[in-house]
Formats: sequence, C-alpha cells, structure tokens
Amino acid sequence: MSIYLDNSATTRVLPEVQDLMHRVMDEEYGNPSSLHAAGAGAERRLKEAAEQIAQTMRVPAASIVFTSGGTESNNLAVLGAARAHGREGHHLITTQIEHDSVYAAAKQLEKEGWDVTFLPVDRNGVADPGQLKEAIRPDTVLVSVMHVNNEVGAVQPVEEMARIVHEAGPQILFHVDAIQGYGKYTYRPQQSGIDLLSASGHKIHGPKGIGFLYVSPRARIVPILYGGGQQKGLRSGTENMPGIAGIGLAAQRAYEKLPEEASRLRAIKDRLVSGLAATEGCRVHGLTDERSAPHIVSCGFAGVRSEVLLHALEDREIYVSAGSACSSHHRAASRTLTAMQVPEEYLGSTLRFSLGAFSKEEDAEKTVAAVRELLPMLRMFTHR
Amino acid sequence: MSIYLDNSATTRVLPEVQDLMHRVMDEEYGNPSSLHAAGAGAERRLKEAAEQIAQTMRVPAASIVFTSGGTESNNLAVLGAARAHGREGHHLITTQIEHDSVYAAAKQLEKEGWDVTFLPVDRNGVADPGQLKEAIRPDTVLVSVMHVNNEVGAVQPVEEMARIVHEAGPQILFHVDAIQGYGKYTYRPQQSGIDLLSASGHKIHGPKGIGFLYVSPRARIVPILYGGGQQKGLRSGTENMPGIAGIGLAAQRAYEKLPEEASRLRAIKDRLVSGLAATEGCRVHGLTDERSAPHIVSCGFAGVRSEVLLHALEDREIYVSAGSACSSHHRAASRTLTAMQVPEEYLGSTLRFSLGAFSKEEDAEKTVAAVRELLPMLRMFTHR
Repeated sequence: MSIYLDNSATTRVLPEVQDLMHRVMDEEYGNPSSLHAAGAGAERRLKEAAEQIAQTMRVPAASIVFTSGGTESNNLAVLGAARAHGREGHHLITTQIEHDSVYAAAKQLEKEGWDVTFLPVDRNGVADPGQLKEAIRPDTVLVSVMHVNNEVGAVQPVEEMARIVHEAGPQILFHVDAIQGYGKYTYRPQQSGIDLLSASGHKIHGPKGIGFLYVSPRARIVPILYGGGQQKGLRSGTENMPGIAGIGLAAQRAYEKLPEEASRLRAIKDRLVSGLAATEGCRVHGLTDERSAPHIVSCGFAGVRSEVLLHALEDREIYVSAGSACSSHHRAASRTLTAMQVPEEYLGSTLRFSLGAFSKEEDAEKTVAAVRELLPMLRMFTHR
Repeated sequence: MSIYLDNSATTRVLPEVQDLMHRVMDEEYGNPSSLHAAGAGAERRLKEAAEQIAQTMRVPAASIVFTSGGTESNNLAVLGAARAHGREGHHLITTQIEHDSVYAAAKQLEKEGWDVTFLPVDRNGVADPGQLKEAIRPDTVLVSVMHVNNEVGAVQPVEEMARIVHEAGPQILFHVDAIQGYGKYTYRPQQSGIDLLSASGHKIHGPKGIGFLYVSPRARIVPILYGGGQQKGLRSGTENMPGIAGIGLAAQRAYEKLPEEASRLRAIKDRLVSGLAATEGCRVHGLTDERSAPHIVSCGFAGVRSEVLLHALEDREIYVSAGSACSSHHRAASRTLTAMQVPEEYLGSTLRFSLGAFSKEEDAEKTVAAVRELLPMLRMFTHR
C-alpha cells in the first residue's frame, strides 16, 4: 500500500464527490445558460454549489466566482483588482514567498507600469505586519498575501494584516491566497476584512480544473477572460458543472468536521516532525507548532540531493515532493526557502511532506523509518 | 424519453469518457508536476491525450495546449497572438458573426489601442474571401475566423481564407475558432495554413471545463494566465487531468467514424429542415445543404416569440435553444442574425436545433410534429 504525502500538490477526489460528478456528467449535463429544463437544472446545481461554499465562510452565495483553478483565481484577484483600480494608484504589496500564480501576476503588473513591494519574511517564513504597515502608500490599491505557504506551511497573520491595511487605507483591497489554507482553517472574510479569497478544488479532495474566488460586495474587479458574460461578466465561459458540483460538495465535507480533521492531521504532522527532527542531519524548516499549518512539513537533509531521496522513497511507494510540486519542473532554488534564509546546504536537499484526508498515523512512522534507513546509504553515495 | 436538440450548447459525456475520468480521479490522481510515480503517471496521461488530439489533425502532440475550455482557447489565441506580435502592428481582422469569446477579446484589444476590422457576411452568414483580401494591411498581425457558426451553422471557407492571408502577408497568423466544427469536420492545420485552432471538450461529448488550442510551431503567443509555467509556460495552472484524459478520448472517438457520423447527422438535419421549411410561417436561416454544418438548424417562426415556443417544446421534453445558448441570458438581438439581415420579424422568434451523437432520426419527426401542433395555438395567444 503506497503512502501518498504529496497532498499539497494534489489530492485524491472523495468517492462521493466522484459519484456526484458522474451524475452531473451523465444525467444533468445541461448548460446553465440554456433556457430549458436541462439548463435550469444546471443553474440550480450552480447555485447549490455556490451556496455550499458560501456557507463555509458565512458569505453570500453571490460572492463566489468559479474559475478553472487556483492559478486563475489568484490571477483574477491580483490582475482583476489591480486593473479595476488602476486610476487610484499603481502600487501593489505582496510577499517574497507567494505562489507563482501571484508572484508572476505581480511581475506582469510591473511590466504594465505597476510598482510592487515584495515584503520579506523572517526565518520562519512569516512577514512582519509592522513592515506591511510601513509599506502602505497613498497609491496602494491592493495587498495580496498567501495565508498558508505551499512549500513550508508558514502561516501569515492575515487577520492582523487585514486590519492594518484597512486602517491605513479603507479603499485598499486585501486578497488572501487561501489555496493551501481553505479546508484546513476557518475563514470569515466579512468579519476579517478579506476582500478577495482564492481557493482550489483539487487541494481539498475535490476535482482538478476548478477553483473559486470570493469577491466581497465592496471589491470591484475586471475579468481576465472575455466572452459570453457568464457569472455576471466576471468569468466568461460555459460553467464547468461537474467540477462546480464537485468543489461545492468537497468544500462542504471539508468543513463538516474541520476542527477534528485538523487535529488529526496535526497529530500525524507532530509524529513526522519529531521523527525527522531527531534524525541526524535533518532540519525541519520554520515553525512546527500550532502557528504552522497542520498538514505541511518541510525538511532539509544535509548531504543528499532532494531528488535522490525523493526517488529512493518513491521506490518504497512513499510519494513526497521536492520543494513545491506545483513548480517542481523549475530548477531554480525555491524563493520561499531563500527568503527564509534556509542554509545553503539545505536549499537543494529539501523535501515537502504534505498530509490529506487519506493520511494515516502510521504513514508518519513508516516514512521516518524509511528516511532513516535510506539516508546513510544515500549520503555514502553522495560523498563518493 | 426527452429529445435533446441543444448539442451546440453542450453535450452529454460519452459513458466511456466518464469511466476514464473516474479512473483518473480515483486511481491516477497525481499532479503531472510531481516527480514521483504518481506524477509521472499523470504526465503520461497528459502526453497520451495530447497525442490522441494531435492525431485527429496530423500535427505534433507538442502543439496542443490544454485550456479550461473554448472561451479560454479563443482568448489565448486572439489576445495571446496579438500581444505577442504587437510590435509588428496593431491590426486584427475577424468577422461580424464570431462567438463572444472572440468578439469580446477583439473589443478588449480595441481598448488596448488595436484596430479591428469586422468583416461582414452575406445573407447566408458567409464572409467573402475577396473582402478579407482587401482588408489585409501591412500592420495586420492576426486574422481570426470561426469555421462553423454556433447559431446558424454557417461555414466559412477557412482554407481559402488561410491561403489569401498567407499570400498577402506570410507573417500574419491565421486563427480558426473550430469549437463547433471540431469533431464534425476534418482539420489539417499544417496543410491548410491554420496557425491556431480552438476547440472545446463539452461540444464533442467530452467534459466541460476543458478545451485545447493548437499552436503551430511558427506561431508565437504569450500566455494570458501567469504562474507555475506549466505547458511550456503557455498555460500555467495544475493540469485538469480527468478533463484532459476525457477530451483526448472524446476527440479520438469523434474522429474514428467521422464521415459516417457526419452523414448520419446530416440525414437527421435534412428531415428537420424539410419539415420546418414546409411549415407555414417558418424560415430556415442560411444554407442547409452540404455547404452548411451537418448538426445545426436555425429557424424563425413568424408571429411567435422564440422563448414561448422554446418553453412549449420544453413541456413536451424537447430541448432547443433560443439563438445561441452560450449567451442566451443576453437579451439583445443576435449579432449573427442581424449581420445575415434576417428579417426583423424573425429576430426574436428564432430557435436553434442542434444535433449530437445521441440524436436519432425520429427526433426530427417528433420535433417537426410538435412544432406544427404548437404553432397555431401559440400564434393565437400572441395575436390576442
């Protein structure tokens, strides 16, 4: 039986979500834009899914925009909000450890004449709200912060940041990339002052190819895809109904027993962390206590290249990630690990272990045991 | 048993495509960017699907970019090609009867300083290649033409147009929106001089939320979504693997018995057309012979509002579309029907009947019979 510890890259779809998607594809295959009963059925499904997601955050269903996934959600938030508010200023604040879909969108805005402040993080990967406060300018229109970092599980104080942002400039929009946090943390955007929030289906045991963006009533954004004007003009294109039904149900399931599931994951993580930390030449990066995400462990292994250990674990059917799997085809050193000032020797020797709904306690023991068995051998080869 | 004649809006997913998607979601749920076996399996699936699609057009698999659907494919083609070639000129040529996802992208380019020529069409909805030739300028960088119109089934002479475009300017890129044509017509982009070709999964009995853009080796485009750099940087975002596997198989199936299936559809269409044309006060728009698409019939019904007839048919479980279902929530008169100079009395009284793999001969008879039975009654109500 394989051990899949790459849930931050992607997750297995819940069986009941698969069943629902099957039903929508087979029996309820209408286009929500069609005026007949098949279209009306699809439109009801669309509303039901929006409602399921909205309820997890206590927001109106009308504030949910469905996208093709996390990347599009983050792009729509950053580019859509920036371009909608370009007359008020051309300054964006974000951090040095954002996901590529925010980072590259910010870089694109720079090309379009925007000024972007990339806030640094400390050795634990956490940005300083005080520095955020100082970075805010009269022409700042958007602040975009990743709640849970995908590579190391560092958690930003987004509620405190939202307060700071709105005190400094009530017109500034605050976007939270919650792609790794949604389904693990409780979000109350309206109370917290979160104007935009991104999430992805396939990180929460829902389908790939679907995500959503929460858009608060006060946030004005312009679309990044142009066409038939679906979803109130914010996202053109025939709605991906099986995906939408799937993410709706997956979201509902994720929040039904959230505190218990988060505790369960944290218990597995604790075992993994203590086992790895007690292993020679291993360095667990960043915080590992309650201030860190319950499902992500990032660990460097001195003297071994991460890919070598990754493939050695793979031989034992233990699946993990080298840095961030979302961009593992990139060969450059991780922006996140670099920003956290992780020592050089660990930059190319770090693995990410990420847990999900199908992870079990014994996965931690087995993984630590495998690492301990493999490391001396692999190090010997490396030193030759 | 209901009669679904709205296949140009969306189609039912083939059972075997559903089975494959189920398997990918349940057992092969890896992220193609992950370096372990689950990732490698997903990457193989990705290549297999690209290969399946590529084979239907005899192009290299590397020229297939997966998107979230037809709208994104058209946006990526038009915006991506235009922006990549902005230094060479700012002139785009398209037609008056494009789908909103091309039309609105062209309108967006106008806002960005581009000059767009919208070629007119004749009463059959066909553009004149001679007028295209005249419209080409030294600063033209892109010509975008819809092969099969989604509302009336009019077919543009894209091969002739491609020749004209490349003779006039070898640097000009030629994009074909084949979203309604793919799976019904044979495309040979390399021989025909088609540089970019858009298609959608859910129009060919594949999944919603997935599409592709063929990008010829000579065509340079820039992405419209920014992030992890998946798909050679042309389309960031974790690949929608079940959708990709699904569209690959659906494409293969669509082309396995294409001539036979197209003939089968045309026979049903012929019955529908002859029945409707012989009905009092009915006007079938555009060409209906071999020069028209085999699966789309557009018909106006004098003296009845299209929605009234649509819902009356719906009561008999016959599902059709008012104009284009993709934008049926728009209330404005159809750009296509207007450009074709369809008489005023039919602008608000037109229905589209569109066939698919599950359509049967008897669907035509039953539909014509229902229309003939309903029309006198509905006209009486309308005249009161």
